[in-house]
Amino acid sequence: MSNEYEISERNKVRQVREKAAYDRKTVHGILDAGIVAHAAFVQDGEPVVVPMLYGRDGETLYLHGARKARVIRLLEATGRACINVTLTDGLVFARSAFASSMNYRSVTAFGTARLVEQLEDKKHALAVISEHAMPGRRAELRDSHENELRMTGVVAVEIESASAKISDKMPDDEDCDLDTPVWGGVLPLETRFTTLQADDLVSEGVEPSAALKAMEGTKL
Amino acid sequence: MSNEYEISERNKVRQVREKAAYDRKTVHGILDAGIVAHAAFVQDGEPVVVPMLYGRDGETLYLHGARKARVIRLLEATGRACINVTLTDGLVFARSAFASSMNYRSVTAFGTARLVEQLEDKKHALAVISEHAMPGRRAELRDSHENELRMTGVVAVEIESASAKISDKMPDDEDCDLDTPVWGGVLPLETRFTTLQADDLVSEGVEPSAALKAMEGTKL
Repeated sequence: MSNEYEISERNKVRQVREKAAYDRKTVHGILDAGIVAHAAFVQDGEPVVVPMLYGRDGETLYLHGARKARVIRLLEATGRACINVTLTDGLVFARSAFASSMNYRSVTAFGTARLVEQLEDKKHALAVISEHAMPGRRAELRDSHENELRMTGVVAVEIESASAKISDKMPDDEDCDLDTPVWGGVLPLETRFTTLQADDLVSEGVEPSAALKAMEGTKL
Repeated sequence: MSNEYEISERNKVRQVREKAAYDRKTVHGILDAGIVAHAAFVQDGEPVVVPMLYGRDGETLYLHGARKARVIRLLEATGRACINVTLTDGLVFARSAFASSMNYRSVTAFGTARLVEQLEDKKHALAVISEHAMPGRRAELRDSHENELRMTGVVAVEIESASAKISDKMPDDEDCDLDTPVWGGVLPLETRFTTLQADDLVSEGVEPSAALKAMEGTKL
């Protein structure tokens, strides 16, 4: 397998091309850092976009919803999907409105979606999604009941084509704007887990596991 | 105008309906709190989703990109758009994989897109977008040059239909799972502006404005 996704009309980044990357390592890194994916489908000729929990296993993205959720039915019906994962890293305060922008990490992936139906395949897919969002947690929990698995809809999207865009910079002002007495710089925007909050039902003496404690304070 | 969006096949929330809201106040509140919108379009019969900066003016969403960006050309060509804004508020660690979930605020809006072409309209739209992402900043900057306005693509989407979904809860475990010695609760996920970082070109004595300072430490 090539280290890069092939560049086609579909995944080619047309704007600000110097920010584009097509290598699998960069694409996978952003997919692994995100927490919610935006999945787009076509329904009756019209676009629909839905936020979903997800996980990655090689070149397969697993997306998770209720079995009867519209997104699951749509994916089943249409097959084609476009998925975007974006992390917002800050606002770039340039000295003109035109040069002002945002810092971000973003991946857009295109692929064919299929419903995951076999219980064993579904278990695997859900383990991948759980491990992505809540690393180490799955091993602390009982096995899923068969009816729970049946009530859960899982879609697998094989990534056929993808691109990443990363912007991580200070303002890029025109020389003629630099004389103005206007402040320029960046205001970082962080998405970070804070501190675990127990519910009222935790049995006495039960503490969060090391895996859960390790998530506190971490940044996406 | 009604205080609620009409419920139709398109915007009806089918899963976990108790989390759904159709009132304009809730929908507008989430749109105003977000920073990036995911806009979906159809291109050659296939879905495309793109993250975009945006702003809201009444029932109009303005989305911003380069004039030649795919998303702008697509919107111009197809007209129909679906836009989602999602804020991720935390992970819900239940005592089963099935009951584990996420806390979030999310809006999905459907509407017809049109290209904003007149320079005066574009100025207004860009002011709305700027005020949304960087409140108070536009007034500190010089007026946009006409060529800058021409190089900027702006799309307006009139919201025809929308729904909100909010999940803000502790685990909702089955009774039979409560005896297990497994910790349950929530790990909040915050998206927060940190501290302004000046670039190397700030003139001596120039400090960030009160408007910029006011953004430091604020949470989406």
